Amino acid sequence: MELSAIALNCSLKASDAPSSTDKLLGEVLAELAKHDVAGEILRVADFDVKPGVTSDEGEGDAWPEIRRRIVAADILVLGTPIWLGQPSSIAKRVVERMDAFLGETDDRSRMPAFGKVAVVAVVGNEDGAHHCHAAMFQALNDVGFTLAATAGTYWVGNAMAATDYKDLRKPYEPTVQASAMMAANVAHLARLLRRSPYPGME
Amino acid sequence: MELSAIALNCSLKASDAPSSTDKLLGEVLAELAKHDVAGEILRVADFDVKPGVTSDEGEGDAWPEIRRRIVAADILVLGTPIWLGQPSSIAKRVVERMDAFLGETDDRSRMPAFGKVAVVAVVGNEDGAHHCHAAMFQALNDVGFTLAATAGTYWVGNAMAATDYKDLRKPYEPTVQASAMMAANVAHLARLLRRSPYPGME
Amino acid sequence: MELSAIALNCSLKASDAPSSTDKLLGEVLAELAKHDVAGEILRVADFDVKPGVTSDEGEGDAWPEIRRRIVAADILVLGTPIWLGQPSSIAKRVVERMDAFLGETDDRSRMPAFGKVAVVAVVGNEDGAHHCHAAMFQALNDVGFTLAATAGTYWVGNAMAATDYKDLRKPYEPTVQASAMMAANVAHLARLLRRSPYPGME
Amino acid sequence: MELSAIALNCSLKASDAPSSTDKLLGEVLAELAKHDVAGEILRVADFDVKPGVTSDEGEGDAWPEIRRRIVAADILVLGTPIWLGQPSSIAKRVVERMDAFLGETDDRSRMPAFGKVAVVAVVGNEDGAHHCHAAMFQALNDVGFTLAATAGTYWVGNAMAATDYKDLRKPYEPTVQASAMMAANVAHLARLLRRSPYPGME
Repeated sequence: MELSAIALNCSLKASDAPSSTDKLLGEVLAELAKHDVAGEILRVADFDVKPGVTSDEGEGDAWPEIRRRIVAADILVLGTPIWLGQPSSIAKRVVERMDAFLGETDDRSRMPAFGKVAVVAVVGNEDGAHHCHAAMFQALNDVGFTLAATAGTYWVGNAMAATDYKDLRKPYEPTVQASAMMAANVAHLARLLRRSPYPGME
Repeated sequence: MELSAIALNCSLKASDAPSSTDKLLGEVLAELAKHDVAGEILRVADFDVKPGVTSDEGEGDAWPEIRRRIVAADILVLGTPIWLGQPSSIAKRVVERMDAFLGETDDRSRMPAFGKVAVVAVVGNEDGAHHCHAAMFQALNDVGFTLAATAGTYWVGNAMAATDYKDLRKPYEPTVQASAMMAANVAHLARLLRRSPYPGME
Repeated sequence: MELSAIALNCSLKASDAPSSTDKLLGEVLAELAKHDVAGEILRVADFDVKPGVTSDEGEGDAWPEIRRRIVAADILVLGTPIWLGQPSSIAKRVVERMDAFLGETDDRSRMPAFGKVAVVAVVGNEDGAHHCHAAMFQALNDVGFTLAATAGTYWVGNAMAATDYKDLRKPYEPTVQASAMMAANVAHLARLLRRSPYPGME
Repeated sequence: MELSAIALNCSLKASDAPSSTDKLLGEVLAELAKHDVAGEILRVADFDVKPGVTSDEGEGDAWPEIRRRIVAADILVLGTPIWLGQPSSIAKRVVERMDAFLGETDDRSRMPAFGKVAVVAVVGNEDGAHHCHAAMFQALNDVGFTLAATAGTYWVGNAMAATDYKDLRKPYEPTVQASAMMAANVAHLARLLRRSPYPGME
């Protein structure tokens, strides 16, 4: 595979519990694979990511390892469930830790995420996906990620409904189409930026 | 009736066009009527509300009349459709015009909306209601409105769906229940605040 | 004192580190004390609040104790720093845990927060306070808290600035005034709702 | 010049009034010119942009002409003032009108904005820039625009302050730097996408 993607599942549950976010991330990685992108999913709740805004919060902090994998990848897929119409506290923690990128620039003022492309996959029983996209797009872009056209995919049910994405019996076509277009765009853009990095500033 | 409500329909369409927001606002006013609240709906797109942040933007500005009705009512029901996951430009214009309240305080620093209670009713084909609540709650609260418990009601369909609320054949129970509880709470609170106004500051 | 307030400091740092949020919360509690409200501050980062959306996530979860204090108080003061223009991951975790309130209703469908009044205090080096208010107002209102007029206070510096609120040498008057008005309003409303609780629904 | 940019000033005031947004947009276009991008500013309040979500709302609608210029440009610079911590109603109207792009795809499902790069410039007396970025990034990305790394620039003053950007006597360095890096990134990305358009889907 030519490119690599790291998908962060920001579910509140550890990986012994089934996750709708996991299902959507799996679909996104399958679409990316069609464009020569190798991917893996990390369940962030399995790790002890300490609160803070540095790249290493000391003993027991699992962030340095996750950060290493983000920096090694071409594409970041941030997956979050919706709670109270908003991204999960774990998704917020992840972008918070990348606040450190603002101070980790090279000699041309480029942050570690410059040239990397991010996408955001959101799942909830109901309502909240656009806001999760907005909040995560802004945070990820602030710390240097590029966003390809239609960089968000999602599934949500009717207002105040209780069905889980993981329990749907058949593919939900609008979400499948959104993920497919997102994957085509992000792979194209990541390839362009790998070959022609941002020049930065003197 | 003991209390009065003014409902602003912030649909992008004028009143010759059917409106899902109108349907939800009608339901909200019906619930409020059960609590002795008389209400009326105004379709904002029927009026020429000028851009600006004063209470009167001059010749042809329809805002002074709408403002008069807001100030005369105990309860403001702000109804907005969702476009791109966000409140309509007309809903934004309405709260923008109330920015003027910040400078229109009495001798105890109370804005014209002090003591009034606001609720927000949101309708879309899909996703965006919680963000519309968030944006409108903050703006309305900033300019002095009080928010009763569960001050938002809404209806939205599945992700990327196209059904209109106005075309549903039967009542959508979760929305009906949310509107009923909202009405009970807002009527109770408006009554308390009418009898015991905020004291303000010296 | 007639009423009680619990202030949650959602700083990313534990209580051995100085906190600008702490300074603002102290000022808010001092204003509340003038209206006969007794308050205490809890630094949430001192506790192990597990991720999840139930009221007890099992062994080692510190949330049940924090939840107990919230339910015992008349007023919740949620204090959050701004990171990337948004509430902290700890603030998000706190409201996420109160998602459980949605299912903990009494025989009149009232959540545990019904009748309680919330305010939100936000501090950052720069930009983000209004969005923090919006996100927290919506989440807190969804789970049953009432919001008095002007329920938010805040301090932020100029765009991309680095000064900390805790390092300001003298009181910042606009913030002092906002906190004072907020305290007057919230104490008034909490008193009304304690005497006349929401009736709920049959 | 190799590339072209259209800057939309979404101030609430028409072009006979001085505008802080205009000042920031002028600075952004000057930075873009260093990267071989020709630009012009349009004051949207000078035009009668009708409410709606089609590309032509009929008689008197000025949108078709603005839309034509957006489609002809490589780069969209959306400039908005902050009111109540949020983008202006005119900024919301502009993105609302581009909702029509969702249905205007070519035979490879590409919207008219595919391949175009957007940036967002925000000015306010105080607080709100990050939220304006978030709301505009999400809306613009939804309708097909690409966002280069650090696609937002802004200026805001201290909490509840009243200074206007247009009245600052000297350049505000952090904003100057943010605009310069933004311009370098967007010009680089627009050039790449012009040479290698998104392939779209069959």
